[in-house]
Amino acid sequence: MNIGIVGAGNVATHLVKGLVKAGVNVPFVYSRTLASAQVLTAHLPSGTATSSPDLRSLPYCDVYLLSVPDQVLPTLLPQLRFPEGAIVAHTSGTQPLELLASLPNVATGVFYPLQTFSKEKELDWRRVPICVEASTQKAEEALTQLGQKISEQVVLMQGTDRRQLHVAAVFACNFTNHLWGVAQEVLKTADLPFNLLEPLVQETVQKAFQFPPFAVQTGPAVRGDASTIQAHLQLLQHQPQYRALYQTLTESIQTVHEKPPFSEKQA
Amino acid sequence: MNIGIVGAGNVATHLVKGLVKAGVNVPFVYSRTLASAQVLTAHLPSGTATSSPDLRSLPYCDVYLLSVPDQVLPTLLPQLRFPEGAIVAHTSGTQPLELLASLPNVATGVFYPLQTFSKEKELDWRRVPICVEASTQKAEEALTQLGQKISEQVVLMQGTDRRQLHVAAVFACNFTNHLWGVAQEVLKTADLPFNLLEPLVQETVQKAFQFPPFAVQTGPAVRGDASTIQAHLQLLQHQPQYRALYQTLTESIQTVHEKPPFSEKQA
Repeated sequence: MNIGIVGAGNVATHLVKGLVKAGVNVPFVYSRTLASAQVLTAHLPSGTATSSPDLRSLPYCDVYLLSVPDQVLPTLLPQLRFPEGAIVAHTSGTQPLELLASLPNVATGVFYPLQTFSKEKELDWRRVPICVEASTQKAEEALTQLGQKISEQVVLMQGTDRRQLHVAAVFACNFTNHLWGVAQEVLKTADLPFNLLEPLVQETVQKAFQFPPFAVQTGPAVRGDASTIQAHLQLLQHQPQYRALYQTLTESIQTVHEKPPFSEKQA
Repeated sequence: MNIGIVGAGNVATHLVKGLVKAGVNVPFVYSRTLASAQVLTAHLPSGTATSSPDLRSLPYCDVYLLSVPDQVLPTLLPQLRFPEGAIVAHTSGTQPLELLASLPNVATGVFYPLQTFSKEKELDWRRVPICVEASTQKAEEALTQLGQKISEQVVLMQGTDRRQLHVAAVFACNFTNHLWGVAQEVLKTADLPFNLLEPLVQETVQKAFQFPPFAVQTGPAVRGDASTIQAHLQLLQHQPQYRALYQTLTESIQTVHEKPPFSEKQA
């Protein structure tokens, strides 16, 4: 199986590393910036970097994976030329499969790895769920097979479900990471190291996947501990952005955990 | 060392279990509700449950740990009678040491375990940082020694720092747990299981403690990917509470990662 990579960002970088590690042949990496493609081909046993969008002049690939920012796809797609009969799949959590429908004489697909990718951090692909969708049965099988070469968890998933998953991932990953950044900033005002919080965070994660998170919610908001909440808001007075976040999240917790009116009447 | 426990909530429950496991003697548990105290003494090799606030009539303890809700402390404290010369410490992240100053003829302290406690979840006390503060050198040493019996990490910490730590813990634990609950609710609309997100969340945690979280922020907000953000807000239109959270957190990420005005001018 030959896999062509289009893109040279975080996802493309980790894809290249993961595919090479799994023994998959990657004959080339395309990027609009040749130098970026060259950075990735350095990871390949052998492979060409290219910035020319006519991919037909390069070795034939069974699958072309498009790992470029969502906003770049619509302008890039009309420029790319793929060989007849290939499978072209994007790796976006949000974009529909149909976005690729205009590509002539190819089968299309989605190959969405549910993970957060940073170039500076090595990644264990075995534990990355890969969500696959395709325009033909054959393409679905090929993408599933490709996914299974690098991951233990390949899931067939329609676009509507994948988009919900992507929204959930933003809450579960991007937003929580932001809150850890805020926690670090709050600790800095007391010269305390961030890693003091690591056992707490790990316990919170363990608990959230052992019980439904809402069922094991702790803290002043769910306790209705108004005096602690007031004290915390007071402490955050010189960090108005974090103070507003504290307030919004406290209210959100209290809305979720509020007993409905009828039960108050019954009590 | 004899330790008396005042309270029967989540923290008291885990304290009793942790102390017993470490071989520390706990002669009694006090709770305003006798039945609650009895639930905890069931964990003790031998020990009395009591709801009588005169603790002088019970076996002498070197340290009395007060694990009751913050709002209960001010009304409970004037009722409790401790033997002369004992150490009385509360376990609150927010309350000052000075709250205990009115207790006659005892040394006072704080013994704050930085962790999230749920009765349904077993806990590894070895990895729980314990923050200690005390009114006398001797009390500080005793509380440190007690902490070291159950945990590998005992930290001396002033009240002002402890309060900042507590605020940071609310962001790092309570608020992130809430977001995982929201993620689970979002997944439910697509009948997807929450554990699909587990590798993503674990990678996010690993990364956040390996690099500063703000430095490894990913997702549509930090990329300035307006079309994905709009698509997500659209998908959340029937869950207005989560939609508002999405918007607030997206704005907060963009505020943190925005280049300051002067650098825009330089660009």
